[in-house]
Amino acid sequence: MSSLKFTAESSSNGMVERDFTVGDVPGVLWSPASGATDRTPLVLMGHGGGNHKKHPAMSGRARLLVAGCGFHVAVVDAPGHGDRPRTAHDEAEIAELFRARAAGEPEGPIVVRYNDHLAERAVPEYLALLDALQELPEIGTEGPVGYWGINMGTAIGIPLVAVEPRITAAVFGQHWPDVLAEKAKRITIPIEFDLQWDDEHISREEGLALFDAFASKEKSLHVNSGKHKELPRFEADSAVRFFARHLGGAATTAA
Amino acid sequence: MSSLKFTAESSSNGMVERDFTVGDVPGVLWSPASGATDRTPLVLMGHGGGNHKKHPAMSGRARLLVAGCGFHVAVVDAPGHGDRPRTAHDEAEIAELFRARAAGEPEGPIVVRYNDHLAERAVPEYLALLDALQELPEIGTEGPVGYWGINMGTAIGIPLVAVEPRITAAVFGQHWPDVLAEKAKRITIPIEFDLQWDDEHISREEGLALFDAFASKEKSLHVNSGKHKELPRFEADSAVRFFARHLGGAATTAA
Repeated sequence: MSSLKFTAESSSNGMVERDFTVGDVPGVLWSPASGATDRTPLVLMGHGGGNHKKHPAMSGRARLLVAGCGFHVAVVDAPGHGDRPRTAHDEAEIAELFRARAAGEPEGPIVVRYNDHLAERAVPEYLALLDALQELPEIGTEGPVGYWGINMGTAIGIPLVAVEPRITAAVFGQHWPDVLAEKAKRITIPIEFDLQWDDEHISREEGLALFDAFASKEKSLHVNSGKHKELPRFEADSAVRFFARHLGGAATTAA
Repeated sequence: MSSLKFTAESSSNGMVERDFTVGDVPGVLWSPASGATDRTPLVLMGHGGGNHKKHPAMSGRARLLVAGCGFHVAVVDAPGHGDRPRTAHDEAEIAELFRARAAGEPEGPIVVRYNDHLAERAVPEYLALLDALQELPEIGTEGPVGYWGINMGTAIGIPLVAVEPRITAAVFGQHWPDVLAEKAKRITIPIEFDLQWDDEHISREEGLALFDAFASKEKSLHVNSGKHKELPRFEADSAVRFFARHLGGAATTAA
């Protein structure tokens, strides 16, 4: 088991940011500057395809959870993303995606296949990450754990949550059901799921089929008008309230 | 044009409740006890079938909007509901609904037909209500106006909003698309729409078809697991945040 090594630390506006590695996987842990209390909830996040652990979508969501709820938030670079090297397979798949995009062909089949490959590499990394984070004295094993990832973050998160009982609430969204629906059927924790009604890549039927697959007794679907990249910012606030309801803590995020 | 006559007044926990009549239609107006300011938003609500203007769902939503946002909220008894007399037609339709329910037959065809009849009577009443409310000096014509009604409140609200340009944001949900979808196509204001994924009366396809019909550029669908009467209470908080976003005012509702 790899332990977590901190490599850098900074803080701003009440949030401490610590870069770390677990084995050769680089990540970032955001925590309240005021210090965490016992049983402080932890949210693991997964970034979107082509992005990285400190993309503004990640740091922005982290700020809502840390400043608004007093939670810890951790995210690692996915395989082939951010500060991590690309394999020849990564390069080939990315080239194929760009070729299809330029040719106006559907991206779905390539993204589904490549994300499945990335998830097979990333799930063991997230399991090791959670082990290592829970060894930190300021986190420990008592606090509840959530997962939040959209797009590629869902492709990694669904197989992760399907095998990891420590995660007890999750926010997913915007992915094709191929590969993932069978794994979603094994998930019973509360879920919030986002999809875009006018998504140019994922059809309504595909998005609804993935939401439908979760075995969760409590699940919510948030559909918004707009294209794939137009997920409204207020859905991040909604996700934070979802985690506050299920993991505890007071969401003080303004409307 | 009928003017509004107040018939009773009480207050509790920072909210003033005033009963009124407009013509022969009884209603209730809830307002902040601290007094309204210029351009204070107003939300008109429509209650559910078989309920009335002061059902806990109405007074509870009003408290969120008045105490949380400082808005005015008004609701009237629908025709044949609450303090209003039933016509022979009302009695016959209600008897038919109860018969179908006891026989295990689908309620949809009866509810769709009867709600359409009620909406034809109620829409002019809501238009007169809004005229009369805007004649009150503490409301006036400058503040933005919203509409919030689920179930029968949607059956009345969609034809109302389709013809009333003063209403600029609306929360609807849980109704069949028959009759209403054609009217929804004329609605372009921001919409939040609730449906239940396991509704025993309204199929998923029917619920989605009504959401899809709105011509609104900004529209959000909130689907939750559970049966017809199990709409989660946090959807009321979400609706309040929706009105705060679109009509102004600070939603201070806790998560």
